[in-house]
Amino acid sequence: MALSPYQQLEQEFRQIHAFRSAASILRWDSAVMMPRGSSDLRGEQLAALESEAHALVNSPRVSRLIDRAEANAQGLDDWQSANLREMRRERNQAIATPHSLVSRMAKATSRAEVRWIEAKEKQDFSIFAPHLEEVVSLLRDKAALLGQALNLDPYDALVNEFSPGLTSAEIDTVFTALGRRLPGFIQEVIELQASRPPLEITGKFAPSKQRQLAVEVMKAIGFPFDRGRLDESEHPFTGGAPGDIRITARFINTDPLSGIMGILHETGHAMYDVGLPEAWRGQPVGRDRGMALQESQSLLLEMIICRNRPFVRYLKPLMEKAFGVNGPEWGVENIYRLLTRVRRSLIRVDADEVTYPVHIMLRYELENEILKGELKVKDVPQAWASRIADRLGVRPTNDAEGCLQDVHWAVGSFGYFPSYAMGSVIAAQLYETLRADRPELDEEIAAGHFAGLFDWLRQNVHGLGASLSTPELIRKATGKPLSAAAWIRYAEAKYLEE
Amino acid sequence: MALSPYQQLEQEFRQIHAFRSAASILRWDSAVMMPRGSSDLRGEQLAALESEAHALVNSPRVSRLIDRAEANAQGLDDWQSANLREMRRERNQAIATPHSLVSRMAKATSRAEVRWIEAKEKQDFSIFAPHLEEVVSLLRDKAALLGQALNLDPYDALVNEFSPGLTSAEIDTVFTALGRRLPGFIQEVIELQASRPPLEITGKFAPSKQRQLAVEVMKAIGFPFDRGRLDESEHPFTGGAPGDIRITARFINTDPLSGIMGILHETGHAMYDVGLPEAWRGQPVGRDRGMALQESQSLLLEMIICRNRPFVRYLKPLMEKAFGVNGPEWGVENIYRLLTRVRRSLIRVDADEVTYPVHIMLRYELENEILKGELKVKDVPQAWASRIADRLGVRPTNDAEGCLQDVHWAVGSFGYFPSYAMGSVIAAQLYETLRADRPELDEEIAAGHFAGLFDWLRQNVHGLGASLSTPELIRKATGKPLSAAAWIRYAEAKYLEE
Repeated sequence: MALSPYQQLEQEFRQIHAFRSAASILRWDSAVMMPRGSSDLRGEQLAALESEAHALVNSPRVSRLIDRAEANAQGLDDWQSANLREMRRERNQAIATPHSLVSRMAKATSRAEVRWIEAKEKQDFSIFAPHLEEVVSLLRDKAALLGQALNLDPYDALVNEFSPGLTSAEIDTVFTALGRRLPGFIQEVIELQASRPPLEITGKFAPSKQRQLAVEVMKAIGFPFDRGRLDESEHPFTGGAPGDIRITARFINTDPLSGIMGILHETGHAMYDVGLPEAWRGQPVGRDRGMALQESQSLLLEMIICRNRPFVRYLKPLMEKAFGVNGPEWGVENIYRLLTRVRRSLIRVDADEVTYPVHIMLRYELENEILKGELKVKDVPQAWASRIADRLGVRPTNDAEGCLQDVHWAVGSFGYFPSYAMGSVIAAQLYETLRADRPELDEEIAAGHFAGLFDWLRQNVHGLGASLSTPELIRKATGKPLSAAAWIRYAEAKYLEE
Repeated sequence: MALSPYQQLEQEFRQIHAFRSAASILRWDSAVMMPRGSSDLRGEQLAALESEAHALVNSPRVSRLIDRAEANAQGLDDWQSANLREMRRERNQAIATPHSLVSRMAKATSRAEVRWIEAKEKQDFSIFAPHLEEVVSLLRDKAALLGQALNLDPYDALVNEFSPGLTSAEIDTVFTALGRRLPGFIQEVIELQASRPPLEITGKFAPSKQRQLAVEVMKAIGFPFDRGRLDESEHPFTGGAPGDIRITARFINTDPLSGIMGILHETGHAMYDVGLPEAWRGQPVGRDRGMALQESQSLLLEMIICRNRPFVRYLKPLMEKAFGVNGPEWGVENIYRLLTRVRRSLIRVDADEVTYPVHIMLRYELENEILKGELKVKDVPQAWASRIADRLGVRPTNDAEGCLQDVHWAVGSFGYFPSYAMGSVIAAQLYETLRADRPELDEEIAAGHFAGLFDWLRQNVHGLGASLSTPELIRKATGKPLSAAAWIRYAEAKYLEE
């Protein structure tokens, strides 16, 4: 029997997924396994796989099949309709950016990234500036073309690549609310915490023992080691593909909490991928719903569930056994204070839950102004330094601690930063509903039982794949539109507790 | 300026190489890193990459470009002409086998491999027999089509896929000579060795120490750890691609010699890949010259160079340091005797240098008869058992020790086996010339200096890539046609030494 246009599309996208997931494993390999001198060959392999996937999405055959499948959509069920919608979305996105622009962008960002590394090492923004100019100029073209094709503002068209359906309207609402509350809130929290400082942990903790502990916790959480791995890399990340999820960790032998918390963060990402609907694997609708949702899952697990007393009650005896330690600094309350310490600091990736949105809002403002041409690239260091001083009360002594700290702009990822803070806000909103639905959650976590948590997440988030837009998914899961209210309630309850 | 047809072909084949080398890294990952439950996804990724490479070689565009480049060949230098010849060869090979046959073969061999594993575990050939029948039937079609297209006998057309240019004529000449000398030779060697048995090594040797020792030796040999890796897997192999070579080892904690010798074997393969002409990387002429040559390089390093006294003199102090051992069993002469022990045994992969060709000649005979239909699949176990008993004086007690021991037939690799024994013969012939050219070789090896050895190999073998056929390359490197004479001289001198 001949396949319908829709069925043929499923085949095409399964093939596209095979190329993309192969590229994803190779990128994991590049970060974790590849010998340093093999990067040229790897570059050629990744370029071949990615341009093949891009060519398939852009092919006249796929466009024709989408038209024909849409004209015969009456036989499709809800999932298939959502899948067809995602195929159309992907195709529209891909076709809006001409191949010449994609290729110029690839070259410009690959040069810019190398120069960014050098500039950061030498603490000299001028090395990076002309390359950022070039990237920004290409990004303006891309944003304009994408915006026209998708009927979005240029900046929103970029956001949409990372978090489909999310717009500046929602981001601005959330960030305005956070911006009003945060300065005073941070001050209050820091004063309160100063009145009860935690005891520091001292000693050395072998990475092999940290790893063993992490594996035990990951198993309790439900990470499927028969379809996933834990390795080490310089920057922890979640890679691979659903069905073969690979997370990485970085162990510091003087700081056993940072390694496990990093792993819990990545495990949150991984469990989202694990919970995606199995029947839709390899199809557009079977993917996660983008970076804001992804970040909500990592932050929900790390920040909300695990940097919390019930989890610390579960973790304490495991740490004592793994490291052969005890004493007052290993008490539940002390570990909890260490895990929730708030500090004004310069580096985003080291920031705590409370000050983190400040770092993001700064970047969001700046990248909007850069894209619109309101802020010149050469003026970025000065603008960065004075604004972070204003907002957070800390001033970088050099650009490596300031505007050169993140790779995102070098690789052209404008529109990505908001997903971090939006993820935090989404996590808090999901958590409010989750706790109402599941009053026994704290006891379960304290007992090391995570099934209830992930049942709820699977039902309300993971199992929906990409069938809804980002805002739709949040409204469906929580009954409310996305807002900062739950985050503020959560943060106040947690951090202003007397 | 527009690219010439030849230049366009170089681009096409660079792309083909990107897909193939990506697949090669993923196959390494499957054997070394991949979680067991992720094999379905991996299967889809490999199928996508391999069928894309196959489609590119088979494309009308490539055929047209080859025709046009051949019509304008006067401007090409020798390397380019050889490259064009290899492109044509590859294209002819690919186009001779229709896609439907390739796809039926892929399915049949993937079923057959699963059933082979089961049959081997249960020691029951009947589980495997119908699947081998199916594979053989498809192989007959393939061999006939390939033979017609390449003007070769059907069996030779299969050999040609693995060792281009090698035919049954050369193989028969070599195997006839070996077959005449070996039975008596094996008897003499075993009697001689019985008069001076080596002391056995006892104790436990941690894999981590075995690995450390191996890395030290590999570094001395010149293995480029900045563009290669050493890992562990159940069956040692050399994977990856030139520029990113990955070898694997298997360490047995009671047998420190088997681990290092396995690694030296794979390092021999790796150094061939390392020595391929860098300027031709990714092009057909830049590849190795097939399996017989590959095997000659692994056997030259493991069997001829390293299972020899000068290398043992170099290795002895390193082993003493690595394992903290000493005593009479660690003496140079005793280790040498352990490394050159000849025994009549049933399992090919455990066989020594002297009996190994007997195992291969048996398989060569049988697979020829099976392909021609002279031997029925159901009669293979009986034929195997009685012939190995005749030739080697050992009789399998079950088929797992007999005709089920190797994966090759299950995966359709008829024509592959001869490359092992031909590799051994080629290695001896190369070694004879090498020693004549480089009288100081033994002293260099004893001092741990391998540069002279690899300079010679690079100049005479590695650096030629695929620019000559297998027999042409041997004649150029040694000044003589391929024959068993050097092997017999080498083996007699080594194993009948009083």
